[in-house]
Amino acid sequence: MSSDRKTWSVKASRTANQATNPIRAIVDKLKLNPNATKPLISLSIGDPTIFGNFNVDPSINDAVVKQLNSFKSNGYPPADGTLAARTAVAQANNHSAAPLTAHDVILANGCSGALEMCINVLCNEGQNILLPRPGFSLYASVAATRFVESRYYDLVPENNWEADLVHMESLIDEKTSAILVNNPSNPCGSVYSRQHLEAILAVAEKYHVPIIADEIYCDLVFKGNEFFPMATLTTTVPILSVGGLAKKWLVPGWRVGWILIHDRNNIFAEINVGLHQLAQIILGPNSLIQAAIPDIFEKTPESFFQDTIKQLEKNVELSMREVSKIDGMVPVNPQGAMYMMVRIEVDKFKDIESDVDFSAKLLDEENVVCLPGECFKYPNFVRFVITPTYDRLEEAYKRIDEFCARHRK
Amino acid sequence: MSSDRKTWSVKASRTANQATNPIRAIVDKLKLNPNATKPLISLSIGDPTIFGNFNVDPSINDAVVKQLNSFKSNGYPPADGTLAARTAVAQANNHSAAPLTAHDVILANGCSGALEMCINVLCNEGQNILLPRPGFSLYASVAATRFVESRYYDLVPENNWEADLVHMESLIDEKTSAILVNNPSNPCGSVYSRQHLEAILAVAEKYHVPIIADEIYCDLVFKGNEFFPMATLTTTVPILSVGGLAKKWLVPGWRVGWILIHDRNNIFAEINVGLHQLAQIILGPNSLIQAAIPDIFEKTPESFFQDTIKQLEKNVELSMREVSKIDGMVPVNPQGAMYMMVRIEVDKFKDIESDVDFSAKLLDEENVVCLPGECFKYPNFVRFVITPTYDRLEEAYKRIDEFCARHRK
Repeated sequence: MSSDRKTWSVKASRTANQATNPIRAIVDKLKLNPNATKPLISLSIGDPTIFGNFNVDPSINDAVVKQLNSFKSNGYPPADGTLAARTAVAQANNHSAAPLTAHDVILANGCSGALEMCINVLCNEGQNILLPRPGFSLYASVAATRFVESRYYDLVPENNWEADLVHMESLIDEKTSAILVNNPSNPCGSVYSRQHLEAILAVAEKYHVPIIADEIYCDLVFKGNEFFPMATLTTTVPILSVGGLAKKWLVPGWRVGWILIHDRNNIFAEINVGLHQLAQIILGPNSLIQAAIPDIFEKTPESFFQDTIKQLEKNVELSMREVSKIDGMVPVNPQGAMYMMVRIEVDKFKDIESDVDFSAKLLDEENVVCLPGECFKYPNFVRFVITPTYDRLEEAYKRIDEFCARHRK
Repeated sequence: MSSDRKTWSVKASRTANQATNPIRAIVDKLKLNPNATKPLISLSIGDPTIFGNFNVDPSINDAVVKQLNSFKSNGYPPADGTLAARTAVAQANNHSAAPLTAHDVILANGCSGALEMCINVLCNEGQNILLPRPGFSLYASVAATRFVESRYYDLVPENNWEADLVHMESLIDEKTSAILVNNPSNPCGSVYSRQHLEAILAVAEKYHVPIIADEIYCDLVFKGNEFFPMATLTTTVPILSVGGLAKKWLVPGWRVGWILIHDRNNIFAEINVGLHQLAQIILGPNSLIQAAIPDIFEKTPESFFQDTIKQLEKNVELSMREVSKIDGMVPVNPQGAMYMMVRIEVDKFKDIESDVDFSAKLLDEENVVCLPGECFKYPNFVRFVITPTYDRLEEAYKRIDEFCARHRK
């Protein structure tokens, strides 16, 4: 006997202890005493499917039923995804300035799975990764489970949420393993100009730090804005771009994500091998959906995407108009994605101390849920999801207006 | 500027470098020059769906189509799985001696995903985990990506592949974080007796080491054998049992696995929290399939499972009969799962040096693929998958018989 444990003492691993969800922790604080006399309106969940106004196109269901009926798509796909699915993803994302083949594509279990693989392959314990602030909390959660330090570069709301590049540069050191850029942005709804993306690329190039481009909202861009895939703007900086079916095809629960490896100078030779190795540990997405991907890409009509954007644009117009009217709230006009950030001018209220306090009291009194900026490391703001039905959004803003009137000095 | 990198030098992380697949490495060695004059027969892939003789029950497709048509199952499920799916899994696995509720169930991305979560939550870098030899290579691959040492306890083929408990005990020290038990076994096809499982539990109890029970093949047991869920045989040893839809419902590509937390003395309090935290990093399986699980469990007729087992039993009978006749090969009678291990008596051959050599030459000359025992850390054996059609298995054994005759001394 080489162990002298006298009793049971089973501790969770360091990894498990690190795997916290800051949003959950903050939201738990909000669950005080929702006003049940009014129907709940959630402006908090980034899931466009829950309100009934954003449904899949029927062709996507047909594509899956075809695979079910074939009885031929139930087995293990290759670890990095089927060749047909990877070919379809490569073609759909191919660009003359950033060409892709199936070999540059790895399928993953949702865009979250793709992000985890990117962080895992690029970052070691003790290194650091640069993340946007405000930003999606999953980045830091994944980094924490690998004991990678998260360093936050500021986004500037007055400047269309562009990155403060001087601040970004000041964070880079020998242990910086990647810069994460999220465009279009959750939670900001910003869509970066070509010039700003090129400026970020110049920083990456100067310090030789690769980029992880979270482009899951890639084509959800409102009129007057244009989305530039980051990889199309550089011939030198190696980029892992992540995306998926979730937002554009409105199926976040299907868990289909991908990594596009942009590496025209063979800088990612080890990373490419490493990603394929990581893919073998956990096979990627559901085989039925993988098999349906070529049909999904080919048969979803362009009008489906246009309808999504039109509906979002109407909601943005409503949101900007109504929230702008409320003294004490300053919305930042979104250009894409599904979110709007709103500054809370706490000085104008007699009894609202913070964004968290605002969200808690709004829930208590009006049964409207929104996430405080603290969830994105950005206090004094709240994030509204703009995917509810028009009617429900109108009702939400009416309640918020009354709420603010009651609490204003 | 606080970094003086002068050029690009992007290295893969330690994790990615550890994430190797030993089977892939060994199989690559086999790809010499398959005899293309004979049709390929693969006895190597543990995927029952590829031969066309093991199809899903139509009710399982109906259950998924129902969810597609509802347009209500496309959004994010809760991180640990929907309550309805977890309730169904709990009920299906409930046992008076090991009761389960939905709170004891966490859904994962396939049984591989479940295993990864179990190892991640129980094991820290520098600790060790006890694994069966021969055993499924994924265990060690997952452990390696977390820098957890794999220690192998021997299974004894002469004793129905039972664990050598003296050897197992000798491996345990202060840093042993779990014992992994795979029953029914891949690659052995063994099904352990109640007495042997109790003996393993006694070791776990003596040293206070929790158990990960890989029970993915739980009900695939042939006549005359009985499967005992490990958790039903102890009131004291905490157990994480993993399973999934893959093998019993014949849908390995669907990537639906689960963890059953068996903890009647609150020893796993931290582990329970840790698993829920880990679940939040990567949301689990596809939402459509999660939503379909209650129907899948309720509506798959018992005859479906019986037909699977009957077909496997016929194939086992054929395999034992034909392989036993071949001088130089000694099959070990499988009692469950989908595999048979066969000892290669290399002394009886004039020009076969090892199991790897056997597999390579068999492919070269007969276009029959089987995995050498080296893939499972167990040389001098080969593993045959017994899920091909009866005709194809007959043809495979005829070719193997001729192959052995040619190479025998």
